[in-house]
Amino acid sequence: MVYTLLSQLEKDASLTDEEKEIIKASFREMTFAKKDLLLLPGKVSKYEYFIAKGCIRAYIVDQKGHEHNIRFGIENSWIGDLYSFFKQTESTCHIQAIEASTVLAIDYENFNHLMNTMPKFEHFSRLLFQYGVMANQLRLSQSLALTAEERYLSFIEKYPHLQQRIPQKHIASYLGMTAEFLSLLRKKITQK
Amino acid sequence: MVYTLLSQLEKDASLTDEEKEIIKASFREMTFAKKDLLLLPGKVSKYEYFIAKGCIRAYIVDQKGHEHNIRFGIENSWIGDLYSFFKQTESTCHIQAIEASTVLAIDYENFNHLMNTMPKFEHFSRLLFQYGVMANQLRLSQSLALTAEERYLSFIEKYPHLQQRIPQKHIASYLGMTAEFLSLLRKKITQK
Repeated sequence: MVYTLLSQLEKDASLTDEEKEIIKASFREMTFAKKDLLLLPGKVSKYEYFIAKGCIRAYIVDQKGHEHNIRFGIENSWIGDLYSFFKQTESTCHIQAIEASTVLAIDYENFNHLMNTMPKFEHFSRLLFQYGVMANQLRLSQSLALTAEERYLSFIEKYPHLQQRIPQKHIASYLGMTAEFLSLLRKKITQK
Repeated sequence: MVYTLLSQLEKDASLTDEEKEIIKASFREMTFAKKDLLLLPGKVSKYEYFIAKGCIRAYIVDQKGHEHNIRFGIENSWIGDLYSFFKQTESTCHIQAIEASTVLAIDYENFNHLMNTMPKFEHFSRLLFQYGVMANQLRLSQSLALTAEERYLSFIEKYPHLQQRIPQKHIASYLGMTAEFLSLLRKKITQK
């Protein structure tokens, strides 16, 4: 599974065999069953997860007990609570496997050590965080400026295969609408 | 003004005189009057701005014509539309000076050149984007999980002097409430 991660890292810079060994030694492979929780509110996030296989969601539960999905992660993407991880403070998120998943987990000490000692890993991290800021910005502006239908069409364009893997109620929650509203929206779009 | 920026960069790593000269040459000082627009929707974001003096906001206008403030920037912080800047695509944001402001502006070519040729600048950018992702995550989780009163109290704790510098209507819009609701909330808090 670690080769999936290394090939992702090598998209940006070639790695020497020694660097590959150091990176491999910094990650632990873990497997989770469907519905397993990787993180709970009140716990400090111990790991950032590179998803080698599967599908994982991060969500917040509001004061009324409603779930709000804030991110989905699939193969070759990362998931975690970066705020809790880097501040080493209690998380406010749930992170849960939507499918049986295999991840490569890296802890705080190893992540910082790699960033501070291996310029190529810092380069990779810079790009990762840069894309993260850009994705957050796009999501925020779309949530404010687009109609519900436009948000849904943008979602299925960005994640064409996710609809088959994620329950509709989770997609609805990610898009800020009820499952009933999304169901009506999909019918309307199909009839067009 | 460029010394403000250099002292910010030097918090993370000391710079040689040569590196300082290269960084200085990569930025242009610009001044804006109150209410000047630095970026409009439909335009490609040419610059990222380091704010040396003043206060600047980024906002989205929704389809009903309502403004939604997405970020405020003050001295020693950055503002811009990173998505439009790095993708070199049309922006969806307005960026506007709330006060007369002096900024140090860097264009896409210079930003990328510094990141790709000066490891200390890449290190600085990595931290900048990392904090950006963390701040966005905190804001999203607070907008979902906190009450209006908690969001307001968190805002004034984080930005203790911003209330005096920014019209209440802009703070209300940032916090996702009407100006009238924020006014009632402030009265309620004062009376406690």
